[in-house]
Amino acid sequence: MSNKLAEMTTDQARDAVRLAPLVIIPVGAQEQHGGGMAMSTDTVRATGLADLVAGRLDGRAVIAPPVNYGVSPHHMAFAGTVTLSPATFQSVLRDVVASLHQHGWRQFLVITGHGGNNAALSVLAQEYLLQPELTFAWTPITPLVSDLIAGMEVSQVHGHAGEAETAQMLYLAPELVQAELLEPGATQLDELPPKARLSRQAQGPRLSVGFDAYHKRGVLGDPRRATAEDGRLLVETAADRIAAFADELLSA
Amino acid sequence: MSNKLAEMTTDQARDAVRLAPLVIIPVGAQEQHGGGMAMSTDTVRATGLADLVAGRLDGRAVIAPPVNYGVSPHHMAFAGTVTLSPATFQSVLRDVVASLHQHGWRQFLVITGHGGNNAALSVLAQEYLLQPELTFAWTPITPLVSDLIAGMEVSQVHGHAGEAETAQMLYLAPELVQAELLEPGATQLDELPPKARLSRQAQGPRLSVGFDAYHKRGVLGDPRRATAEDGRLLVETAADRIAAFADELLSA
Amino acid sequence: MSNKLAEMTTDQARDAVRLAPLVIIPVGAQEQHGGGMAMSTDTVRATGLADLVAGRLDGRAVIAPPVNYGVSPHHMAFAGTVTLSPATFQSVLRDVVASLHQHGWRQFLVITGHGGNNAALSVLAQEYLLQPELTFAWTPITPLVSDLIAGMEVSQVHGHAGEAETAQMLYLAPELVQAELLEPGATQLDELPPKARLSRQAQGPRLSVGFDAYHKRGVLGDPRRATAEDGRLLVETAADRIAAFADELLSA
Amino acid sequence: MSNKLAEMTTDQARDAVRLAPLVIIPVGAQEQHGGGMAMSTDTVRATGLADLVAGRLDGRAVIAPPVNYGVSPHHMAFAGTVTLSPATFQSVLRDVVASLHQHGWRQFLVITGHGGNNAALSVLAQEYLLQPELTFAWTPITPLVSDLIAGMEVSQVHGHAGEAETAQMLYLAPELVQAELLEPGATQLDELPPKARLSRQAQGPRLSVGFDAYHKRGVLGDPRRATAEDGRLLVETAADRIAAFADELLSA
Amino acid sequence: MSNKLAEMTTDQARDAVRLAPLVIIPVGAQEQHGGGMAMSTDTVRATGLADLVAGRLDGRAVIAPPVNYGVSPHHMAFAGTVTLSPATFQSVLRDVVASLHQHGWRQFLVITGHGGNNAALSVLAQEYLLQPELTFAWTPITPLVSDLIAGMEVSQVHGHAGEAETAQMLYLAPELVQAELLEPGATQLDELPPKARLSRQAQGPRLSVGFDAYHKRGVLGDPRRATAEDGRLLVETAADRIAAFADELLSA
Amino acid sequence: MSNKLAEMTTDQARDAVRLAPLVIIPVGAQEQHGGGMAMSTDTVRATGLADLVAGRLDGRAVIAPPVNYGVSPHHMAFAGTVTLSPATFQSVLRDVVASLHQHGWRQFLVITGHGGNNAALSVLAQEYLLQPELTFAWTPITPLVSDLIAGMEVSQVHGHAGEAETAQMLYLAPELVQAELLEPGATQLDELPPKARLSRQAQGPRLSVGFDAYHKRGVLGDPRRATAEDGRLLVETAADRIAAFADELLSA
Repeated sequence: MSNKLAEMTTDQARDAVRLAPLVIIPVGAQEQHGGGMAMSTDTVRATGLADLVAGRLDGRAVIAPPVNYGVSPHHMAFAGTVTLSPATFQSVLRDVVASLHQHGWRQFLVITGHGGNNAALSVLAQEYLLQPELTFAWTPITPLVSDLIAGMEVSQVHGHAGEAETAQMLYLAPELVQAELLEPGATQLDELPPKARLSRQAQGPRLSVGFDAYHKRGVLGDPRRATAEDGRLLVETAADRIAAFADELLSA
Repeated sequence: MSNKLAEMTTDQARDAVRLAPLVIIPVGAQEQHGGGMAMSTDTVRATGLADLVAGRLDGRAVIAPPVNYGVSPHHMAFAGTVTLSPATFQSVLRDVVASLHQHGWRQFLVITGHGGNNAALSVLAQEYLLQPELTFAWTPITPLVSDLIAGMEVSQVHGHAGEAETAQMLYLAPELVQAELLEPGATQLDELPPKARLSRQAQGPRLSVGFDAYHKRGVLGDPRRATAEDGRLLVETAADRIAAFADELLSA
Repeated sequence: MSNKLAEMTTDQARDAVRLAPLVIIPVGAQEQHGGGMAMSTDTVRATGLADLVAGRLDGRAVIAPPVNYGVSPHHMAFAGTVTLSPATFQSVLRDVVASLHQHGWRQFLVITGHGGNNAALSVLAQEYLLQPELTFAWTPITPLVSDLIAGMEVSQVHGHAGEAETAQMLYLAPELVQAELLEPGATQLDELPPKARLSRQAQGPRLSVGFDAYHKRGVLGDPRRATAEDGRLLVETAADRIAAFADELLSA
Repeated sequence: MSNKLAEMTTDQARDAVRLAPLVIIPVGAQEQHGGGMAMSTDTVRATGLADLVAGRLDGRAVIAPPVNYGVSPHHMAFAGTVTLSPATFQSVLRDVVASLHQHGWRQFLVITGHGGNNAALSVLAQEYLLQPELTFAWTPITPLVSDLIAGMEVSQVHGHAGEAETAQMLYLAPELVQAELLEPGATQLDELPPKARLSRQAQGPRLSVGFDAYHKRGVLGDPRRATAEDGRLLVETAADRIAAFADELLSA
Repeated sequence: MSNKLAEMTTDQARDAVRLAPLVIIPVGAQEQHGGGMAMSTDTVRATGLADLVAGRLDGRAVIAPPVNYGVSPHHMAFAGTVTLSPATFQSVLRDVVASLHQHGWRQFLVITGHGGNNAALSVLAQEYLLQPELTFAWTPITPLVSDLIAGMEVSQVHGHAGEAETAQMLYLAPELVQAELLEPGATQLDELPPKARLSRQAQGPRLSVGFDAYHKRGVLGDPRRATAEDGRLLVETAADRIAAFADELLSA
Repeated sequence: MSNKLAEMTTDQARDAVRLAPLVIIPVGAQEQHGGGMAMSTDTVRATGLADLVAGRLDGRAVIAPPVNYGVSPHHMAFAGTVTLSPATFQSVLRDVVASLHQHGWRQFLVITGHGGNNAALSVLAQEYLLQPELTFAWTPITPLVSDLIAGMEVSQVHGHAGEAETAQMLYLAPELVQAELLEPGATQLDELPPKARLSRQAQGPRLSVGFDAYHKRGVLGDPRRATAEDGRLLVETAADRIAAFADELLSA
């Protein structure tokens, strides 16, 4: 039987409330990922991780249908990007959680493939503190394995559509990567214009800039260095860590 | 090249603004579909139709990522159903349309596999009258071919998860139909309780009831009569009619 | 004693909660109705029907004060039209229903004289599914008697401010019709510009257009053909059908 | 020709934009008015004043359809009362003003028969300061003639459904007053319970109480003392003063 | 021990719920106050009054942190003014009251130093009628002592940043008054332009104008006449009256 | 002349738009800070930092009045805590920024003394990406000097109302620290209950818990170890770093 709510019948869902008390909700984005990657990259990675994590949980989790759009104002300079307002994005998750909570689920874990969703998810998590009858956790993917990325050969500036993200896609969905079209984006701090550089300070005030301010391609790092093998390590380790967390949560 | 925005790169999207001026947005639902069909049935049919319609339009349309959740309060008595509030559902579409409009698209066609989304879409369409710089059309699927359904052998009461919808799924995604679990729901008007019967009047005031008021299974009609062949006729005809409309719209 | 809440004292209302468990809420519009009819046409018809329906219910219904404004963006090209946003219109009805519900009423029937209100009313009806302690029904007027209109001599294109609506006004409020100023509007499908024609398809995707796109007068059909006698038939039959529905609802 | 937008055709409205640059919007309430007066009292007085004021302005004003519901939480202890939330009430007026502004009107005067609407109208007036292209004025009725009321024989405590309001109704709509059912409400400050008395301080902090806290009938003063002659003086003087204001505004 | 919630520890607050059942919330504004006074004038006076009132209540009141911004659209023509929308201002107070109510407080008194907040506070007070478990009172400052001001030597037109307000500041915070920069603003009704004059009618419809419409300095009256001694009388008398009210409320 | 907008006259503000193009907005919280610190701790630190930063910028920055309330649902188990909803908090900042932007300021830097505000500020920063005509930056305080804290003697678990925060208060506002009442809170990871421990994982999914889940005192770390000298180092270094950022921003 599928662990995806989308593929279940309602009778199967009714049983899952009891058997699979954790709901995993994958959320992604529809946004530019450079010259060679599909714009669904964040949704694909969130969905892929959800599958791997649920697989590690031995039937104790169900996966909700993915939210295919995210909060992406910083990529709106690039055609095809769609951004939900943070308010809309939050409303979708509130409605999904409230509906499933009404059927009896109590524990929710959002996996976001897109860092632009983090702030809205943090706000939601604060709101759910006022509803102690349910647990709302969420996780990004790439930051969970930043220790591993540090050990790989990455550019000084790296991130969106760069080495680590491209590697994950080469592992999870190589058909959505057109290797011959991959191009480096911003790779050196001192090549960035002033405001873009300020926004990348490790320990300083927060400044957000549109990704066209970093590089005309909107890419951070050099995706040509990505390998499927690195992707496997990042993805499977992230899945291990999320599953370990979920396991503790289910036992708490 | 894919006609799906999700699979395109941003460069391909930039070109598509010019070459493929119509955006098709499939919207579905996560809701009960009786004992034998997957809860994603409406999303699957919307996505399937979007593919068929875009295919008929020779590259003049792109397909946006599907909205996997819809307005389904009438199915909330059944486990696994998720309902967005009409306001949330409308906000998602407003944000999607506004984002793509910003990139240059001017024509939008929502295909909904779920009748519960119709009212919210009608309201949206009214709002877009105040933005004459873009065209917002939308279409259900099954009502487009009600003339064909009338010619099939259907129950007196038929509709949700019944003959016609099951047939469409047998054609589009048979792997999501568990034939041995299909069961008839409400099939005769005079078997319905009073308020449920009132809600099915052909020419009378409108009354909405939860689908548990029709039948404990929430099904209207007898899905066991459905055939993939009927499904093919319904689906392909609906695609023909939507494509014909889109073609006229593109020429208008 | 009046059956209108507006004319009652609070003591009479207190008794009516028990004796007259159905609240009828007439909603209309302030919008153009061609060269010869008053802009309150939809409010007048809604109020008129409410009176006739309540009269048939022998004291079992009260009539709330009418909502004199509706959702009319499609008529904003014509001076004097007022449109509430769908959200505002819905808020008004939510507040009216919630207030009267608090006093003990449980059954509500909105009669709308204006088709532009239908979508917002449908959305409201979905929302009330989550409040099973009250019943929210609504009805348009003209569509209830479309079978009778089909038997009258009407233009190929007919509708807003056309034969049937003008007939109803000649019966209900002839002082608001200036017969000598009635002019035909759009009457033939093939005279319509492409998008306007697309919007009138019987079985196709839904497209909304401003009524100035149909005709410079914003009229569908030829109001000069209207007679008070036809109006009487339409109005009284609609009242019969709504009252029959209300009677069943009160007994359910 | 009528000066009511509801009775005009769109062509007449188009001319009125130029000839009658002031829009008067009557707003009332559906709320208890003691044992002998109709619950529409505030709407009736607002509409009546609008007629008298427009009449004094020689065709330079049009009257919009009345808003039949107001902000009445303080009367919700009494059956039949309806309250819009202040937000809903404000949205209605915003939409009405915006629509008519779009047709070319620039000056708006709301006449409210109900004091419970005052705060929401004051807030609206503040918001319109940010739209200097239009003028938004509003007026209550009874406070405009408080000097005259002081000269009449009124109770120490007087106000809602008391001497002055009943007098106005006896003049404007005697058919909505059932004289034999009029009863005194609270008439002496020292008969009021503490919080109710605090709320009536002339020069002190503001405290709102439900009208059931004043008296079981929700009446302030003794309506039996009201005369149509007093009503005539109050109503006609209020109309004079509003018309004088409007005249100055039109000349400003 | 401080009676300010800001200076208390949570343990002290826990005790205060019982010992000091009234919460005083000072609200002010950041807005122009003419050529010689600080823009925090309204916040300073609200905070000052809160201290004096709490002092008179012998430990039975706590003071919440001040809301430093108010509703000031009428001063936006003057640099440095900040306006919250009425909706935002109301949300802040709703959240503050709800939070403290959750900890056990039941009585709230807002002291506003800024008349622009009055309408929004009145609306809030209406909303709280629907929550009878808490008492929400509010008070302006200057209108509480209008009888005393009438006995002082003030201009025909006086008010914002004029004699009375400047006097209060000379008493409460003389360091925020630069006496040598004080200049008269509008002082005579017949010097005002027509709309500004209309807005100052004692007994007429309400019209709001930006304060630049009164005078280029946005001042009403002549602040040079203000004395600290007058300020002392106004401030201490207002404190007496508010404290007397609070005392009655606490005993009610 | 003061660099605080609250203390300026409008004329001074008018000049400051040109001379002091950066607006610093301090935002804090009203929330429990253990047994010995004032509940305004976060507001006090934000205001203190704002002063120090502005001082380092030689007149190129103005300081807006502080927002005295923040987003604190995680402390609502402790008396005296007030929480704004994230939506309210964001609305306040939106209105403040919009008002000052209207007067000509283009650069805004929010200094938050409260980590609970971070998520809402991040969301705001995303929204401002769509308004490129202004720059919206924000900064927490303590995380800016986490490298220094790591070098101090702190507990394994430390944070809210612990060593570093208390040290800052001993330096900035010792009168708001009652040293004899300081008590240790949670200090060891393995003493935490499971969900609380999960929420403190360095590299794992995000889980928010109420601070009563960490310790009955809601404190993380041992505030008794705090010294004013450490506080001086943390505060002055944070001010240096924020000022350096602001300096670069002003030159960018």
